[in-house]
Amino acid sequence: MKKLLIQLDGDKFASTFDCIVAHDSGADDVLSYGGVTVADVRPLILSAFFTRGIPDLKNLAGWIGGSDVELGEQILAEAQRTFFGPFKISLMLDSNGCNTTASTAIAKLVRQTDLRGKTALVIGPGPVGLRAASLLAREGCQVQLISIPPQLLGSRYNSELSQKTLASARKAAEAVHSSETTGNGSLHVEDVLDLSRLEDLLGKAEIAVAAGPAGLQVLGLSQWASKEKLQWLIDFNLTEPLGIEGVKPADDFAEREGKHVLGALAIGNPKMKVHKACIAKLFERNDLILDTEGVYQIAKELA
Amino acid sequence: MKKLLIQLDGDKFASTFDCIVAHDSGADDVLSYGGVTVADVRPLILSAFFTRGIPDLKNLAGWIGGSDVELGEQILAEAQRTFFGPFKISLMLDSNGCNTTASTAIAKLVRQTDLRGKTALVIGPGPVGLRAASLLAREGCQVQLISIPPQLLGSRYNSELSQKTLASARKAAEAVHSSETTGNGSLHVEDVLDLSRLEDLLGKAEIAVAAGPAGLQVLGLSQWASKEKLQWLIDFNLTEPLGIEGVKPADDFAEREGKHVLGALAIGNPKMKVHKACIAKLFERNDLILDTEGVYQIAKELA
Amino acid sequence: MKKLLIQLDGDKFASTFDCIVAHDSGADDVLSYGGVTVADVRPLILSAFFTRGIPDLKNLAGWIGGSDVELGEQILAEAQRTFFGPFKISLMLDSNGCNTTASTAIAKLVRQTDLRGKTALVIGPGPVGLRAASLLAREGCQVQLISIPPQLLGSRYNSELSQKTLASARKAAEAVHSSETTGNGSLHVEDVLDLSRLEDLLGKAEIAVAAGPAGLQVLGLSQWASKEKLQWLIDFNLTEPLGIEGVKPADDFAEREGKHVLGALAIGNPKMKVHKACIAKLFERNDLILDTEGVYQIAKELA
Repeated sequence: MKKLLIQLDGDKFASTFDCIVAHDSGADDVLSYGGVTVADVRPLILSAFFTRGIPDLKNLAGWIGGSDVELGEQILAEAQRTFFGPFKISLMLDSNGCNTTASTAIAKLVRQTDLRGKTALVIGPGPVGLRAASLLAREGCQVQLISIPPQLLGSRYNSELSQKTLASARKAAEAVHSSETTGNGSLHVEDVLDLSRLEDLLGKAEIAVAAGPAGLQVLGLSQWASKEKLQWLIDFNLTEPLGIEGVKPADDFAEREGKHVLGALAIGNPKMKVHKACIAKLFERNDLILDTEGVYQIAKELA
Repeated sequence: MKKLLIQLDGDKFASTFDCIVAHDSGADDVLSYGGVTVADVRPLILSAFFTRGIPDLKNLAGWIGGSDVELGEQILAEAQRTFFGPFKISLMLDSNGCNTTASTAIAKLVRQTDLRGKTALVIGPGPVGLRAASLLAREGCQVQLISIPPQLLGSRYNSELSQKTLASARKAAEAVHSSETTGNGSLHVEDVLDLSRLEDLLGKAEIAVAAGPAGLQVLGLSQWASKEKLQWLIDFNLTEPLGIEGVKPADDFAEREGKHVLGALAIGNPKMKVHKACIAKLFERNDLILDTEGVYQIAKELA
Repeated sequence: MKKLLIQLDGDKFASTFDCIVAHDSGADDVLSYGGVTVADVRPLILSAFFTRGIPDLKNLAGWIGGSDVELGEQILAEAQRTFFGPFKISLMLDSNGCNTTASTAIAKLVRQTDLRGKTALVIGPGPVGLRAASLLAREGCQVQLISIPPQLLGSRYNSELSQKTLASARKAAEAVHSSETTGNGSLHVEDVLDLSRLEDLLGKAEIAVAAGPAGLQVLGLSQWASKEKLQWLIDFNLTEPLGIEGVKPADDFAEREGKHVLGALAIGNPKMKVHKACIAKLFERNDLILDTEGVYQIAKELA
């Protein structure tokens, strides 16, 4: 019986990346749908349940991708709402690679150092930054997740969008605090409007994570090199200029200025392994939901 | 040489159900097209003929699905118009599952009792009801196919749509009567506007078939239980409230109130077998057209 | 590792022909995209590079098709612009079958006679005519590529479109002349507005190629039979009336009126072999670009 992946993508065309990697991860075929809206989800998922007996539903799974993470989350929620009784299929969300990227980076970090009680600053409350911050908090860090100051964003600054992103992040922070799996960690979201506040927070952090937009530097070399407490730096940005000046993309916890730095390329390779392992897991049962937590568990096993 | 199925679907997205079942029925791959209009059919079907030699065209086939049965019929007709000489491929229509559902139910009934000369009432002249009525007539029944009285439909009643559906049904009834394969059977279509007329017709029927919309009861328990002549009941409705009160979806000619009743779930399982057998048959030759009659022959062989 | 072909098609639906032939030529699966615009190309091609290691990128390739050859050329150019360093995949353009059709015909002709120094008249400067003319010039012919006189086109004549097509052809002619691979051949483009000029040019030609629209005769029997110099005739038209009166579609350099004539069906069969061989070649490396020249090399090897 063929393993078939139903690819739901909110972009005009279903991602070639997601489709090719699915083929390379054990899917026998991929049913690709681009331009998917929330209203399209129900018939696409529901009718799959009636094709095979319950024990064989594990050979079907759903993949949610595309560049719009918020839409992806809505699609995932709607897909889960079609479930009833044993009629369900495993689902994974990785819009814009957010879950595999954040999970891989934090899973690599937790292998290097005990995160419990450490202070962390995550710059950029978008999907990847938010997920990295949540995972750090769940590992016991005191996390500050902050917006990128308008002075750094320049013409890219959009006040309305920024407030919307912060509101989502605050909601996620509440979920982290109310979760049983969060020990003594904490996640605070802050709208940072001037550079001196960023400087203050950086001075208190042992871990700094740059999760800004592609090709935007958020930390200068002299800025971070001078902070005594700071020990660990992670940069998700692969497009020049990188997010953290002085970090090389291939740095795999390389020592620079007395600190340990992790670059985007050193995250990207193990991320592919996490992605493939997740797809394979989807086909082991018919009730696995791989969102941030689920992907992170797999990333930790592989790290 | 791969067996490839060209899936033409009038809905925005090609059905996952039809695609998955095709994979499970021996198709090596499915070329899925959603949002297909009649104007799109010619290039999609015609250009397939020139890919392989005539003896190998049996490894290509066309599937027509989607929720709109009338559109499906137009797509099927247009696809057949592209045929010339030996340049053709096998085609199957099963929009909304109409052919496999109706064929399976009547094929099951004909195994239970000799239909020749029996009187049948089919309530609901939509695609499934119309096909069930046609097949009953071709098996020798005197069939009354009636509209659902407005009193039962309530706010769902749409006079214009109802007249359009009845007109299609009358046209189909003429085709049944002029067909050589119809023996002494007959099919009459009637627009029933009040409940007493439904009651009269039910009193004269030996077979009653409920083919109304999902979640609408068309026959109450006391109504059918009291009819002496009535022996066989079929309900296509799987959504509560069911079409016939007192029937259970899993009833497989169970005896209730002294009659034999067939529920939607007991139709659904063998329907899947019929669907799969039909797909397999498509790939045995390049000139098979599986519409109501063709699907019914296969359903009878399997029943 | 599966061989996957990314099919980019500018038409509403990706061609069934191209998809089926890809399956028959060794592609394990095809990722089909219809309605592709130039703006869609970058993410679809670029993201494929990051799925596999460089040595494995040869198992991915891109196919550009559809009825609009100009759009196809733009898609091909845009796809190549996404390449950087070793990050690339092999690509082939065959919109409307233009490259495989023209290449096969000229590859067949060059096996029959030495083309160097011969005079050729190509009637119809559309994609197939233009490519045939270019290949003849590169083989050393003195080629006149002409528009179809308005008197022959009748109501199909569109002055604006004709000028646009001629402008493209003139640009291509410049490319032929500046190419190192062109020896002593030449390609001249001419807007022919009356039948007597067509007659003059035909009288000087040793080779005549009819590349007009489907179902339009561009040369009458008495017209070409009377030209003493004329030795070789090629007709790409498969729809009655054919492009050259008196030629049969299956003529494979048959002798008619003392000349050697090649019909569209005799081109079509080897064209399929060329098409399949090209697809297979795409998967041998990750940097092959199969446009006119590349397809022609393969056609010559097979002829």
